[in-house]
Amino acid sequence: MPKIEVCHSPALYPVYENTESIVVVIDILRATSAICTALEFGADKIIPVATIEEARAYKQKGYLAGAERDAVTIEGFDFGNSPFSYMDEKIKGRAIALTTTNGTQAIHAARNAHKVVIGAFTNFTALCNWLVLQKRDVLLLCAGWKDKYNLEDALFAGAVTIEIAKHPDFSEQVADSAWACRYLYEANIQNRFRFFKNASHSKRLARLNLKKDIKYCFSLDKTKIIPVLKGDCLVRLD
Amino acid sequence: MPKIEVCHSPALYPVYENTESIVVVIDILRATSAICTALEFGADKIIPVATIEEARAYKQKGYLAGAERDAVTIEGFDFGNSPFSYMDEKIKGRAIALTTTNGTQAIHAARNAHKVVIGAFTNFTALCNWLVLQKRDVLLLCAGWKDKYNLEDALFAGAVTIEIAKHPDFSEQVADSAWACRYLYEANIQNRFRFFKNASHSKRLARLNLKKDIKYCFSLDKTKIIPVLKGDCLVRLD
Repeated sequence: MPKIEVCHSPALYPVYENTESIVVVIDILRATSAICTALEFGADKIIPVATIEEARAYKQKGYLAGAERDAVTIEGFDFGNSPFSYMDEKIKGRAIALTTTNGTQAIHAARNAHKVVIGAFTNFTALCNWLVLQKRDVLLLCAGWKDKYNLEDALFAGAVTIEIAKHPDFSEQVADSAWACRYLYEANIQNRFRFFKNASHSKRLARLNLKKDIKYCFSLDKTKIIPVLKGDCLVRLD
Repeated sequence: MPKIEVCHSPALYPVYENTESIVVVIDILRATSAICTALEFGADKIIPVATIEEARAYKQKGYLAGAERDAVTIEGFDFGNSPFSYMDEKIKGRAIALTTTNGTQAIHAARNAHKVVIGAFTNFTALCNWLVLQKRDVLLLCAGWKDKYNLEDALFAGAVTIEIAKHPDFSEQVADSAWACRYLYEANIQNRFRFFKNASHSKRLARLNLKKDIKYCFSLDKTKIIPVLKGDCLVRLD
């Protein structure tokens, strides 16, 4: 019977690693939300890279490139981490190199899993429906903030746990880490957005006038696309 | 203003390390509950050691010694991890070497903090009162289970967060990890013991007929003692 487990930090991934599992990388504010948006708006693929230098090298080769650190877009790049910056005609059919503070690091950590997919509130239902059909261990990998726990990723992990554990195949093997996220989501199901006034990263983004981004990143089901890692690139799951 | 933060795994301790903070090591089932009991029942000190071999070496030198792995007492030792095994006249005035699956590893990880103290439901009120008086950053370090997240340690971290954040000095700087534990505790405040039917380690102990231990480890305020690390030993805080 497949297991549902949550890993709260990319730095803990080796403890949870299971090459048979599907890893869902979660960086709600904002990398995984932005990746879903970019593929929804027609980007061909996203190339997640660890460093700003790597992203710059792609840019010099003619790729579009996004780079964000500490919630700020790095100068000289086409995009930062805002989903809105990807809602643009110019991305159609293009490959985009992307480096972010936490999300792209998490994708890199999980690259040897059976499959690595991208989760966000914006592709929630499509993702959960697909996970249930796979009947395989699910590891929800929170990107966190600089390897520390964060609330918004844990909340999303709780939402996914509740949804897939409704299915009898997944109801029996909910690890402690997933149970706790479930409680967190149930306690805040009525108002995800208001809850996040308390989250450290929401405060960080609010200071940067990014409230519109936060609201978007907590919206459900803006797309049916599930980004999946194929080689070094994130593409649409068939 | 002092900060309250939770680290869910000894393996993540380097990410949270702050040599100015007080680290509260938490291993509710059962190491930190047992350590409080041993000092309450008259042991002079506890020497936490990482390996069974080290504990055995102490035993051969004439110390009392406890050793537990995977919830089972290792043969040839005086104690395992059950608080009840320490409720014994023979421990009065003695030093006890102790090695456990998770708890003693967490103590070892935190040894360079400003102070390392031991937390359990059994010394809850004394611990919280003392923490509030220190006006210093508090890092609640959950021993977890083999470096993974566990529910009972997170629950206790939530209880401590709620209690000390009532104090104005601590109310403003509650990290995301502590917020989440707070929700977990609030959702289950009515019945900590019943809640723990869901925890993986409760199931593990129940299989081993250790329900009496679980019930004891979830009892509040059996002692006013706060064990503190002094050099290599845990002793009563003055």
